[in-house]
Amino acid sequence: MNFGEIVLDRSNNIPLYRQLVEHIKAAVAAGELSEGAKLPPIRALAATLKVSPITITQAYDLLAVEGVTGGQVGRGTFILAQASTFQASNSALIPLIREESPAYNSAASWQQELTSHLKPTRVAEFSRLTQAAMSRWNGPAADFISLTSGSPAPELFPRSRFSRAMEQAGQSLENEDDSLLQYGPPLGDPVTRTWLANYLTRFEIQANPADIMLTTGSQQGIDLIARVFLGPGEPVLVESPSYTAALDILEQRGISWLPVPLDKDGLQIEQLSRLAERYHPKLLYCVPTAQSPTGQTLAPERRRRLLELARRYNFLIIEDDTCNEFYYEDNRPPAALKSYDTDGHVLYVKSFSKQIFPTVRLGAIVAAPFLLEKLAEAKQVFDRATSLPLARTVMKYASSPGFERDLKSICSTYRTRRNAFLAALEKELSGTGASWTHPDAGFSLLLTLPRSLNSAEVHQAAAARGLGVQPGPVFYPSASDGVGMLRLTFCDNSPARLEEAARRLGQTLRELHSRRPSPARLVSVV
Amino acid sequence: MNFGEIVLDRSNNIPLYRQLVEHIKAAVAAGELSEGAKLPPIRALAATLKVSPITITQAYDLLAVEGVTGGQVGRGTFILAQASTFQASNSALIPLIREESPAYNSAASWQQELTSHLKPTRVAEFSRLTQAAMSRWNGPAADFISLTSGSPAPELFPRSRFSRAMEQAGQSLENEDDSLLQYGPPLGDPVTRTWLANYLTRFEIQANPADIMLTTGSQQGIDLIARVFLGPGEPVLVESPSYTAALDILEQRGISWLPVPLDKDGLQIEQLSRLAERYHPKLLYCVPTAQSPTGQTLAPERRRRLLELARRYNFLIIEDDTCNEFYYEDNRPPAALKSYDTDGHVLYVKSFSKQIFPTVRLGAIVAAPFLLEKLAEAKQVFDRATSLPLARTVMKYASSPGFERDLKSICSTYRTRRNAFLAALEKELSGTGASWTHPDAGFSLLLTLPRSLNSAEVHQAAAARGLGVQPGPVFYPSASDGVGMLRLTFCDNSPARLEEAARRLGQTLRELHSRRPSPARLVSVV
Repeated sequence: MNFGEIVLDRSNNIPLYRQLVEHIKAAVAAGELSEGAKLPPIRALAATLKVSPITITQAYDLLAVEGVTGGQVGRGTFILAQASTFQASNSALIPLIREESPAYNSAASWQQELTSHLKPTRVAEFSRLTQAAMSRWNGPAADFISLTSGSPAPELFPRSRFSRAMEQAGQSLENEDDSLLQYGPPLGDPVTRTWLANYLTRFEIQANPADIMLTTGSQQGIDLIARVFLGPGEPVLVESPSYTAALDILEQRGISWLPVPLDKDGLQIEQLSRLAERYHPKLLYCVPTAQSPTGQTLAPERRRRLLELARRYNFLIIEDDTCNEFYYEDNRPPAALKSYDTDGHVLYVKSFSKQIFPTVRLGAIVAAPFLLEKLAEAKQVFDRATSLPLARTVMKYASSPGFERDLKSICSTYRTRRNAFLAALEKELSGTGASWTHPDAGFSLLLTLPRSLNSAEVHQAAAARGLGVQPGPVFYPSASDGVGMLRLTFCDNSPARLEEAARRLGQTLRELHSRRPSPARLVSVV
Repeated sequence: MNFGEIVLDRSNNIPLYRQLVEHIKAAVAAGELSEGAKLPPIRALAATLKVSPITITQAYDLLAVEGVTGGQVGRGTFILAQASTFQASNSALIPLIREESPAYNSAASWQQELTSHLKPTRVAEFSRLTQAAMSRWNGPAADFISLTSGSPAPELFPRSRFSRAMEQAGQSLENEDDSLLQYGPPLGDPVTRTWLANYLTRFEIQANPADIMLTTGSQQGIDLIARVFLGPGEPVLVESPSYTAALDILEQRGISWLPVPLDKDGLQIEQLSRLAERYHPKLLYCVPTAQSPTGQTLAPERRRRLLELARRYNFLIIEDDTCNEFYYEDNRPPAALKSYDTDGHVLYVKSFSKQIFPTVRLGAIVAAPFLLEKLAEAKQVFDRATSLPLARTVMKYASSPGFERDLKSICSTYRTRRNAFLAALEKELSGTGASWTHPDAGFSLLLTLPRSLNSAEVHQAAAARGLGVQPGPVFYPSASDGVGMLRLTFCDNSPARLEEAARRLGQTLRELHSRRPSPARLVSVV
């Protein structure tokens, strides 16, 4: 095999090291590399292919774990005997199938009879809708613009700084106390909790490290609270619309929803008060800052009144504060609900998925001792404690000045995108009858369709024009709500693509409108 | 402050960097270091105190996250204005309390009325017993020998190799595909799953990467399976005795236990067959190799028959295989149950807590596609996916030759300890009437007390002699069982301490026996 002839496609989504793995496996399959053949040294091949030596190292690592190659330090990397039985796959994103794959007897009838206790989930519906949209698009995949993901912008991920933090965290653990590497405290690494207690003062939260429990993210935080404090049939207040993942988690407990409508200042407190008085709810789940999906902020005066109601009617509040760092207005965001909490009603839930990158998987719960004690017991039962190496890595990165600079820069990029998107909607949707929320913060806005249209048909028609939008019903506690709504996200596309997206949406709405029978014809048909 | 006068105590359990932090905070509190005072450069202080520069770096990091110091790259580290309000604590293991601690109104009556839906747990009972034992010991803490922890031996933790793996994993993520850093596949990092599919062949398991889902440990694996496949009242087969954490998790689902007795070859298959025929169980939870707490191994012929029964009565099997790597006999351990699985009944659960260190928190489930699909949906709902940086770190360490060498060395150390402990029990308990299991593998054995004694009184009397033992009932699905049993762990103490522990246990049993009324006197009293 002539390694100089390998062509790596930099415009391709598949990382270079995976492309290289596929080339080498194809050569093995084709007999161009046989047992005992030696691969070029890392630096030599990096120079030949004009890539970083890290790319070659990653490719060689993956070949080794797949059993294609073996080697010895100082002697090089060799093709193994059994490697020729490996199949080359065209895309490394397809799971790499091993020859000795188990063949389960799929005819066994018991498999069909097996019932699942998981209630139907929005996350599955989400995934079905995404696939349906893609299947209606005939153009190149790169031209499809998705306003559905809610993911942070990958070009802003702090890759090298996070890598350095992993190295530093590893060094710090070399000398760490045995007790922390053992099963350790269920609240998680005390050094990370000490840092976090300080970090949270920016939201005006005063917490001890002992008031904080580390979790694998805000979802695990919500889930632990639900498992400890909610039982079947118990009434739960929730913003309507709300965050899909939280709705999914809470519904698994078999609770009853008490949806509270929103206006531009967030939760309508009078409505909430009437519901609380009548139904004695156990808990309220809410996102006071960067509300999901509206992007709105709960006004300070309403925060104060909300805590009064919690004290009067004795309900707990989950304050999900995942996106507080991404506030786009000139003033400061209001102090966290938790800062108004005098009697311990507020369970504050945090995550670093948007601030670092989503598969980091670190979050926290801040709660009064009498609540955290029970949550810590649950954490011990269900997954013992959150990973020390992971927590320490996040702490090393997030306590560095680089993190603060990164946050500022990400927030500024997102602000620019929000502004571009709002301006484009204003321009492209004028006269369609659509309206939308003004997101002070966060990743998305909620759009109200013209009266004659529903979100399912808009979803379909937009997909055919290369635009992904999210129909409203998955965001509502009651599935019959939200049929006239769309959620649109704006953080992970460039201003140019957001403008093109607004254009496609405008075209879609006008096209659907023009196909409608006129009111006069509608009457004559009826 | 004269930094040269700081004395760090190397014989102390508190890590050196934490001792240094306490010295500096004490100096701030005493006014010896005031606002703006500059701390010595890292290398200079390391030389003065004769410690590694890493120790100084860790201390300075912790001071910074606590807000005691601030600094700027190139200018040094300074004491901050507000630092003098920090209290110095004598032990850095006490959570570091910040001055602005929230004072919740503890008089609020609603706190007492709040009910928890968590059923009573063995983990809480475990912790209560440990504290009770320590409170009965008047000698120095270091002289107390605990045979209760089930933790791996900390002196064998691969600290420097794991640190290197964190660095390598960080580098590998710098060039990784965006899609993996985003919310990513619910099954977890495909590179780690590819490595794991190969790793599992040593247990004769043939799996595709797509048959594997990464979890935060075996506990999360068991919990996800329980949440998806078990509902209230459903009958569940279990070894009696069994692993406490699994009993805790499964009981949270409100299931009904079908306990199956064990003999020296593991689960008694005839009994299991009768229970399966009569009660149609939904699932069996078992630890076929390195059974917890007996340390015994399920015989190969019984493994084959067990799978026949699963096929006949259509029950699922959770095979918890956490300690398979620690098998001490000369032959190889039997192939995993999963390797006998033709129809997809076996859900294989793995963890790396004992092979690396417990707060790593990485594990996996291996299951047939029609089961894993449901588990992946549950994982997405409850905590999205397992951390990529963490998974990649474990993969980097565990795919290196150093890991295989470490495993061999750990296994050999544990074998020596097991042999020393068995020999010591033989010597010190002869004539007491106690008997115990022979652990082929794992971390513990189960001891049957002489008939006249119960485990609660032995627990108390042993604690007064400086010995921690675990009473039997927490290991049994039915709390009334196990009163004549003790679990004793042997991996995290030296042979000399294990011999001393056996001596103390022998003394305890003889002392309790001598206090018993003789049968003749007993009759006269009655």
